[in-house]
Amino acid sequence: MVTSARTGAGSAAEAGAQAYQLIAELYPICRSITGEGNRETLRKLREHIPLQIHEVATGTQVFDWEVPKEWNIRDAYIKSASGERVVDFRKCNLHVVSYSVPVKARMTLEQLQPHLITEPSYPAWVPYRTSYYKETWGFCLSHNHLAALPEGEYEVCIDSTLAAGSLTYGDLLLPGKTADEVLISCHICHPSLCNDNLSGIAIATLLAKALGTRELRYSYRVLFIPGTIGSITWLALNESRAARIKHGLVLNNLGDPGKPHYKKSRCGDAEIDRAVVHVLKHSGSDYEVLEFSPYGYDERQYCSPGFNLPVGSLTRTPHARFPQYHTSADNLDFVQPQYLADSFAKCLAVVDVLENNARYLNCKPKCEPRLGKRNLYGTVGGLRDVPDQQLALLWVLNLSDGNHSLLDIAERSGLAFGLIQSAAEALARTDLLTKLEV
Amino acid sequence: MVTSARTGAGSAAEAGAQAYQLIAELYPICRSITGEGNRETLRKLREHIPLQIHEVATGTQVFDWEVPKEWNIRDAYIKSASGERVVDFRKCNLHVVSYSVPVKARMTLEQLQPHLITEPSYPAWVPYRTSYYKETWGFCLSHNHLAALPEGEYEVCIDSTLAAGSLTYGDLLLPGKTADEVLISCHICHPSLCNDNLSGIAIATLLAKALGTRELRYSYRVLFIPGTIGSITWLALNESRAARIKHGLVLNNLGDPGKPHYKKSRCGDAEIDRAVVHVLKHSGSDYEVLEFSPYGYDERQYCSPGFNLPVGSLTRTPHARFPQYHTSADNLDFVQPQYLADSFAKCLAVVDVLENNARYLNCKPKCEPRLGKRNLYGTVGGLRDVPDQQLALLWVLNLSDGNHSLLDIAERSGLAFGLIQSAAEALARTDLLTKLEV
Amino acid sequence: MVTSARTGAGSAAEAGAQAYQLIAELYPICRSITGEGNRETLRKLREHIPLQIHEVATGTQVFDWEVPKEWNIRDAYIKSASGERVVDFRKCNLHVVSYSVPVKARMTLEQLQPHLITEPSYPAWVPYRTSYYKETWGFCLSHNHLAALPEGEYEVCIDSTLAAGSLTYGDLLLPGKTADEVLISCHICHPSLCNDNLSGIAIATLLAKALGTRELRYSYRVLFIPGTIGSITWLALNESRAARIKHGLVLNNLGDPGKPHYKKSRCGDAEIDRAVVHVLKHSGSDYEVLEFSPYGYDERQYCSPGFNLPVGSLTRTPHARFPQYHTSADNLDFVQPQYLADSFAKCLAVVDVLENNARYLNCKPKCEPRLGKRNLYGTVGGLRDVPDQQLALLWVLNLSDGNHSLLDIAERSGLAFGLIQSAAEALARTDLLTKLEV
Repeated sequence: MVTSARTGAGSAAEAGAQAYQLIAELYPICRSITGEGNRETLRKLREHIPLQIHEVATGTQVFDWEVPKEWNIRDAYIKSASGERVVDFRKCNLHVVSYSVPVKARMTLEQLQPHLITEPSYPAWVPYRTSYYKETWGFCLSHNHLAALPEGEYEVCIDSTLAAGSLTYGDLLLPGKTADEVLISCHICHPSLCNDNLSGIAIATLLAKALGTRELRYSYRVLFIPGTIGSITWLALNESRAARIKHGLVLNNLGDPGKPHYKKSRCGDAEIDRAVVHVLKHSGSDYEVLEFSPYGYDERQYCSPGFNLPVGSLTRTPHARFPQYHTSADNLDFVQPQYLADSFAKCLAVVDVLENNARYLNCKPKCEPRLGKRNLYGTVGGLRDVPDQQLALLWVLNLSDGNHSLLDIAERSGLAFGLIQSAAEALARTDLLTKLEV
Repeated sequence: MVTSARTGAGSAAEAGAQAYQLIAELYPICRSITGEGNRETLRKLREHIPLQIHEVATGTQVFDWEVPKEWNIRDAYIKSASGERVVDFRKCNLHVVSYSVPVKARMTLEQLQPHLITEPSYPAWVPYRTSYYKETWGFCLSHNHLAALPEGEYEVCIDSTLAAGSLTYGDLLLPGKTADEVLISCHICHPSLCNDNLSGIAIATLLAKALGTRELRYSYRVLFIPGTIGSITWLALNESRAARIKHGLVLNNLGDPGKPHYKKSRCGDAEIDRAVVHVLKHSGSDYEVLEFSPYGYDERQYCSPGFNLPVGSLTRTPHARFPQYHTSADNLDFVQPQYLADSFAKCLAVVDVLENNARYLNCKPKCEPRLGKRNLYGTVGGLRDVPDQQLALLWVLNLSDGNHSLLDIAERSGLAFGLIQSAAEALARTDLLTKLEV
Repeated sequence: MVTSARTGAGSAAEAGAQAYQLIAELYPICRSITGEGNRETLRKLREHIPLQIHEVATGTQVFDWEVPKEWNIRDAYIKSASGERVVDFRKCNLHVVSYSVPVKARMTLEQLQPHLITEPSYPAWVPYRTSYYKETWGFCLSHNHLAALPEGEYEVCIDSTLAAGSLTYGDLLLPGKTADEVLISCHICHPSLCNDNLSGIAIATLLAKALGTRELRYSYRVLFIPGTIGSITWLALNESRAARIKHGLVLNNLGDPGKPHYKKSRCGDAEIDRAVVHVLKHSGSDYEVLEFSPYGYDERQYCSPGFNLPVGSLTRTPHARFPQYHTSADNLDFVQPQYLADSFAKCLAVVDVLENNARYLNCKPKCEPRLGKRNLYGTVGGLRDVPDQQLALLWVLNLSDGNHSLLDIAERSGLAFGLIQSAAEALARTDLLTKLEV
């Protein structure tokens, strides 16, 4: 695995444990695209990182959209004739279709049926559904559960409000040497679902925490926003800031056991694309790179043609490719600390590439310089093998003609970025190499 | 299979049957690079399409060539001593080497031998040979046939004329909105051979017939010409018109059971190349794409460096790769209506791509617009899958930045052109997308 | 195999035998980066080719390096208490670490141990080691040999001198029509080692001899230099000449049974890269192409960023990939005449490509010209196959638009360069093609 000196296996494991704990803490909260659950979530994150919490009023025009009414829910249930809560929001907040309008009624099972959603292919699991833009109400329950409900009359209650209010999001800027920004974005609109999206929230939080202790080249903007409407809102209200984003990652699904997947930005060969692919390639374990597509998470907005930002998406198993996706089975058993730890380490390794991907200039470009007299090379000649450290020195000297960044050199040499970076730093301490300021 | 609404499986099957019938009708005629057989062939085509028939006089200089003498043949035979026609042109016009000069003589089998051509590797079939540019005469017969001929004296007769006359070709222009042309070219110089070239003639005729009923974006020029000398003649006499050809296809070998083959134009990535490859890729059945080579059919002339037109060649089995090639076995059993139907449908699908490959502009390029409120998107959120129709909408919006044509979008998305086109048309009916006029 | 008419299998076999004989003759000489052994080697080469021998004084500044002291050695041994030479330089010059300073002493085996080098993984072989830039002394011997040495006192003697003198190299310029140069470079600094580097010396010598009898398009510079410091010295003293080098090959390891390997220049798609790859591809036997890396032989210097010359490296088995590498087993059994012959033929084939890779212009670019009337084409039409010779004519005509060299045409057509060249020459004897002078 490519990790900097600052983030060895130990601290990654620790971060994995912390991420898992944070997920466990946030799991019970009922989040949506607006509402108290989101505020509570962001307040908890503020215990870890100095997040700014923003409120955008219902009705605010954001490009082709407007900020929706705020939805809040206190309770919801279906009671049997005997008064027993046969479906209970307090047991599992997925039971209510998100953005359900209030209802209080008695009806037969048959009348209730159009408002009941199950997922027959996974009969033991409660599906997760939303209806943000059509005012309706509904309950989600497992297919087995529905099958067991007897005919008869039921009392149905959704104690929710859908009214003018605001959309809430969190924003953190870690200033670096330049105003150029690296965007880290995760969505916060899912209720009790761990991989999608609590894992993204947790990793983004720990990443922000770790970067907060560093001297940074880039400024890092970390966004905690409701999916789609949140990124649209942020982009609409921060259009001029968006132009500063030089690299970006949308984070989600980072706690499951699947192999890492990186979905490229719309550009396809942006520096962020190459940095992530490099890190995955040298990670020593399996991974997959996906081409950009305009479906997925908030990269859809960042990569819309009017912005076309170099923002990719890092996940383990991508959305909809794991059976637990958008069901009650995406729970605290499904995500595990070791996978969170591995995801965290990879994110930091990507940051290391971005932070250190400089250009250098070989000051003695005619023939190789004498590395031996600068204590950078062995003295016995004729040996069969040359260690990678020495190869890295030769590659850096050979390609540091002003046209190649360290990532270019790492890619062409097949050596890990960290090795190339160390070689460049060693050479830059002699008269042989100069760092180019850009 | 990619087919437009106008050309479903039904009409393709009908076209296949019509093509086969036309082939059967033209099969007995003895064609060559000049002569009455060609005129008769074109006259029969004129019963289907408003073809113009052109005559170019013998001796006309056409680039490095000149239009040859006109060849006509009434009869030919080899008679045994007993007066029996042992080889009879009236039974099979392949028996005479095309462009044979007249002969009337008695000679022994030994004296006759240098004028007898067989194909020993396919001993039951009569080969097809020509001698356009060296005045000689000869008979082709099956190897078995020759082996059975007894020694003895024979009477040899070729009742042909080779004299000043003209070269005949057919030309049809279907005018479209622009003067830019799509060239459809087939050769008409082969006698009783079905796949090469009656299948090309039949498909080109039915294509012209089908396009004649449409409102067209491009103008379509359909050429029925003798191979090589015909395309050279047309290009020489129509040099300025050739510059209008924006896309072109040479059609032949379209009735055999083999999988489709597309041979790219000299450019290799012309729009016609990409259109045909796209259609074949989404056809659901096997196909093969061949790089350009300067050997083959009339694409050799259209792709000569002085013209370098974007003209590819569509066949099923390419020339010389089927055993029946240029033998009497390339007959009415070898070609079949269903293969002709499939070839016809693919040609029309290519036309559909060319006709509809426009550029559009996303009028709301900053973030995704709200498709739901324009009735272009489902209302329930959280679902596992997104249908291809909705993906197509997202792709069209994402890439309609003025730089991408619908074919670009189809290629990058992996979705069929028809789906992308429908999405663009649906979006263009709203305020979201505008068609760019070019 | 691609060979010109001038270098058929016969003359290649002869060259292989001559190369082997030359290797055998030079094998006993003790070479290093300086010294009498190098002078003797170059004097022997001068019996075959009119080499200029150059001396560059110790201390001369050459870029970041300076020419080292000259090293010479008369004798060296380790004697047992009984006076027997248990390690004897006169039996094998690999026994002494190259550039060992003089020593004359008695010491126990234990005291001697730090100065004894073996290669335990190949216990029967004497390794080859150098210490050019750290003044020390040492003996190399087989691991078995060391194990058999009894404890006790030994007499150690290295009768060497390390003093101001000069570095010796050989240089030969074969003038051609243009001052543009093709560089052939081999290193001469290894003592009794056959594949690395006597095979390179022998092939370069025979190549120079063969080219000396030809009328050449390019000028050929053949360098016989000590590795690294030699190429650095030559480049430092001939900086302006280096700019004339348009193509170059570093030759070594050309006598072993392994398949040919070509390591590309730093540019990666220089004409030399394409020429060698073409020759290997059409050779009919296995080969491997390696990407450039800044480790290896003198291409490291030629391809340093301040020069970036289009110089690749041709070997059979590359350095360090054969067990015999830098050991006493790289001897006269390891290299064989037939492999030398094959290497020589491939080098000449590469030269043939470079010498003949011209551009031509099709004088009748509109449609195909009539090859038949110029006796370049058969007269019978309708045949199934077209011979490669005729295909080559069509390819040359089709691509000779001024933008394509013969190598471009060979690559695109898949035909061998020699066939394309012959076609171009045949066409250029008619009115159809003109050679472009560059």
